[in-house]
Formats: sequence, C-alpha cells, structure tokens
Amino acid sequence: VTEPAVVPLGDRLADAVQRRRSQLVLGIDPDPARLWPRALELVKQSRAGDDRAPAALAARAVVAHGRMLLDAAGEQCVGIKPQVACFERLGAPGWAALSELVADARERELIVIADAKRGDIDVSATAYGQAFFTGTPTPFGDVPGLGADLLTASPLLGRDSIAALLTQARAAGGGLLLLTRTSNPGADDLQGLRLGDGRTVSEAIAALVDEHGRAAVGVSGLSDVGAVTGATAPGHLERLRELMPSAVMLLPGLGPQGGDGNALAPAFAPGPAGGLVPVSRGIAYAYQRNGGDPAAAAADEARRLRELLWDLYA
Amino acid sequence: VTEPAVVPLGDRLADAVQRRRSQLVLGIDPDPARLWPRALELVKQSRAGDDRAPAALAARAVVAHGRMLLDAAGEQCVGIKPQVACFERLGAPGWAALSELVADARERELIVIADAKRGDIDVSATAYGQAFFTGTPTPFGDVPGLGADLLTASPLLGRDSIAALLTQARAAGGGLLLLTRTSNPGADDLQGLRLGDGRTVSEAIAALVDEHGRAAVGVSGLSDVGAVTGATAPGHLERLRELMPSAVMLLPGLGPQGGDGNALAPAFAPGPAGGLVPVSRGIAYAYQRNGGDPAAAAADEARRLRELLWDLYA
Repeated sequence: VTEPAVVPLGDRLADAVQRRRSQLVLGIDPDPARLWPRALELVKQSRAGDDRAPAALAARAVVAHGRMLLDAAGEQCVGIKPQVACFERLGAPGWAALSELVADARERELIVIADAKRGDIDVSATAYGQAFFTGTPTPFGDVPGLGADLLTASPLLGRDSIAALLTQARAAGGGLLLLTRTSNPGADDLQGLRLGDGRTVSEAIAALVDEHGRAAVGVSGLSDVGAVTGATAPGHLERLRELMPSAVMLLPGLGPQGGDGNALAPAFAPGPAGGLVPVSRGIAYAYQRNGGDPAAAAADEARRLRELLWDLYA
Repeated sequence: VTEPAVVPLGDRLADAVQRRRSQLVLGIDPDPARLWPRALELVKQSRAGDDRAPAALAARAVVAHGRMLLDAAGEQCVGIKPQVACFERLGAPGWAALSELVADARERELIVIADAKRGDIDVSATAYGQAFFTGTPTPFGDVPGLGADLLTASPLLGRDSIAALLTQARAAGGGLLLLTRTSNPGADDLQGLRLGDGRTVSEAIAALVDEHGRAAVGVSGLSDVGAVTGATAPGHLERLRELMPSAVMLLPGLGPQGGDGNALAPAFAPGPAGGLVPVSRGIAYAYQRNGGDPAAAAADEARRLRELLWDLYA
C-alpha cells in the first residue's frame, strides 16, 4: 500500500464534522417508483434532452430528485452516501446521474461516501479504485474517477484485495469503509461465526481494519480505513471499538426514533467524527410520515437528526 | 426466495457445455492501455460518433476489442465473463460498452457470467438484481437489466442478502456464483480462518451455497447457486465439492500451462458442466507470448485450452 495522503482522510473528515457540526450523512437511494412528485413533473414537462428512452428519463428524474434532496437536507449533513446499486440499475444513464450528483455534492463541500461494497483481487481491485477514486489512463486521455472520498468495500478476499483498493483511495486522498458488522438480519450468518481462537469473524475483520489504517492515523486520531458497523446491534460496538481505536465507523440502520439513548457512544470514543450516521428513507420519505411538502419535511427531519446526534455524541 | 426457473440454470448450463463441448469461459477484462492495436486503430480512424471525450473513445475501443475477441475465441467457449470493474472505470460509456458486449455474446448463444462480486442488503440487493437480471420499473417505462445468466456475488452479508439477489436471478432464469474460496494470495486471510466447530469460513460459505441451491437442482444434477473456487488451490476442491455436490464451480486462476494433471477433477464430479474455467489474459495476450496476430493467437490458445479441459474433464 502506498503512503497515506498529505492530509489524511481522517483529519479531513474530523474537520468537516466540526465545521458543519454534523455527523449525519444523507443517504441517496433513489427508487424510480418513489421519487418526489416534483422531480417527475420536472422531467415530464421538460423538452430538453433528445433521449426519451425510459432509462434516460428515469435518470434525469433521479438527478432532479437528488438535487432537491441536497437543497433541502444537504446543509444539515456532513456528507452524502449514494447507494450505487440504485444508479447501476439504470445502466449508463444511471452512472451519469451518479456522477452528476457526486459532483454537485462536492461543490457543496460534502464528503462523498460511495456505498458500492466493492471487493476484488489485484488488477480488478485496482480498476474499482480507478473507477471510484483516481481515474484511468487511456490512449485517448485520462478518464476521471467518480470523485468519492470514501468507498464501502468488502474484506472477504483478504489483504491483497484491500491493499490494491486502498492504494487507489490514498492516491486521491480518500479512504475505505470495510464491511465489518452489517445492519441486516443475516449479518450473523457469517460475520457472527465464532472462530477457534474465540473471536468472531467480525472481530477478525476489525483487526484487518486496524492493521490497514494504522499507518494513516492523523492528528484527529482517525485513520483512512474505517468500518461499516450497523447501528442495529449497538452491543457489538464496544468490542469493535477496542479492536480498531482509530477507525471511522459508518453506522447504518438507525431506527426511526433516531437513536436508543446513547447506545452508539463507543463509535464516538475517538471524537465527534468517530461515527457517521447515514439516513436515507428516513429523510427522503419524512413527508409520508409527517405530512407536508417533501422538501420541508426532509429539511425538518435532517435538522432534528443532526441536533439529536450532536447533543448525544459531540 | 422465489421458485427456481422452469428450466433451471444448472440444466441450461449443462446443455450449453455439451452442445459446445467446452468448459472454457472467455474472460473479458479490458485494460484501455492494453487493447489490441487493431481496436485502437478502428476508433482512431472512425469519424462516427460525436462524442470525442476520452471515456467515450476508450469505451468504443473496448467494444471493438471485445468484439474481435469474441470473433476469434468465442466459438471455443461456453460463455463469457466480463470483469465489471474494467467497464465501470470508464463511467457511463463503460456501462454502455458492457451492455453492448453482453448483447453480442447472447446473440452468439454464449452464457454470460457478470463478474461483479456484488453483495448488499434487502432493497439494495434487489436493486443489483434488477441491474444484472430483471430490470427496473420506472414511471417512464421499464429499464432492462444487463442480461446476465450468472452473477458473482459476495455472501459476507448472509442469508437475506443472498436471497434478495437470488430472487431476481431466478425470475430471469439465472443464478449466482458465491465467493467461496478465491484464487488470490489473501484468500486465506478470512476465508481460511478456522471456526470453533472445525470448519473453515470457506466451508461455512459452501454450506450456504448448498442450502440456497438445493431447491433448484435440475436433471443435470446442477443447481442455480454455484461457487467461485480458485484453481490456484485445488487441494480445497474435494472437501468443498462434498459440501456442495450440486454447485457449479467457477475456477479462476488456471496457470499458463492450463491445468496441473487432473487436479480440478472434484469440480467436475457432477458432470462436465460442474466446473467452468475462465481465462482472460491467457487468451487475449497469447500473441505477446506466442507471437503472431492477436486474433489468430487467441483462437489457437482458446482451442488448445478447450481441448485440454475437455480431454481431462468431460
């Protein structure tokens, strides 16, 4: 793995969290069947764009929806977390839409966490790193990468797969979030298995997280290799934090109430940026629960969550 | 998980292997810096297409390269295995290129194995399934999926993540290949860990493969949930085959000599389609080792590998 960036990702993130007073991350998981009505209307009314294929129109609606979400809730957040699957299913126009929204978020100085859960070996891992971080040299000129700051990644293929991806991330000043203990019901099927040495698979992953990030711990105490550790099983957080004291923890799965007392506290032990809390549907569909305009409801919900988290964990 | 397809993937695959007398899979991992010279020339000479951006030009060269590979070596193969990372790094034009090559391969009646190593939870897993298999309903009409027959997938997130993806695969008559014991040096870092019950993590994954495929074993004896089991450590194959008797095994990492005696035999225990052997650079760059025209060298090498495998394992 190459040397860490001059300003390591951990420090850049800690600065952003302090500056914006937010640990909230805006999840962007656009479902074409559930976009904000105004985004659909914009595309239906518009005459711009020649391409009337369903994928092209749906992708334009996804961009419009994402921009409205950013306008409404972006200010309350430290970053965005686009779910890449939701864009990929629209094919090439979906990738163009993802790229547009990422560029928009970067202009707003939001941290971009590409939630793609990639993981592959040697040259393929490097290719994913080029896709999300550094870009690709071609005989026709360089093709830029997506411009992510962080990428969720699977550690299942081991050290060489992590190192190849991390090399690309660091070359762009970015980092990785390794799937360590996810938020879904099946998390324990493999991650929860008990090893012969008494650790769980998740704890073995946490050791890999710590090993890879150790060389890149900044003045903030945070490194550029973090972990996805679901908020749905906060009982795991204390032990995982012991094993990876410098890791940024991405905490998906926060319930609609927005936190169970201060159950997520171990994530924030290194400081306010030790944990990042992504919320997607909870913000985008707040209007369906609380009534009112989608944008106003999203703004209110994002503000509520940001303040709740900041009061508990800053 | 939904019911298996009317003609389960395993039977469709077994038929294709018999009909083409081939267990060889053409890996398509285009590196824009190492495309066949003729593919570059075609794009440089061509005036077609308005888009002169590096990504658009590189993607056109990738399609030209892939078509030439298919023309040269396709007939010797039962399927193709595009490495999705290599397309993704070219952004939207890269996805369009992937889609074009997949459509081309399907017209040639080749099985399409999308090597994307995806794995995510609930709605996101469904979105990946829509991207690769079934397509996505939108208010503007349906967006088709990529048209894969098989998708490589990570089991790290457990049963619900596998089930959501498999539901989409089955709805399109396709299947999954779960990462079980990969071909890279770091495979043992997690997959090789020993559990308290004496199994390795790979063996626990093999049990998940068997569990998910059991309902979809066709008359061929093969199911629609297979496994990626590297050819680089054939010593693992016997035990893994015991644990998942109906799984199609994808066997990457075959050495340049093309097989070590009949070390891969356990993969083929259920029949000639029990194992599929992807070869990418060994075919595409055969001309750099053996001299001659890229296409002729690729055709020769593919023929040699097909016959070698068929003699050993059919």
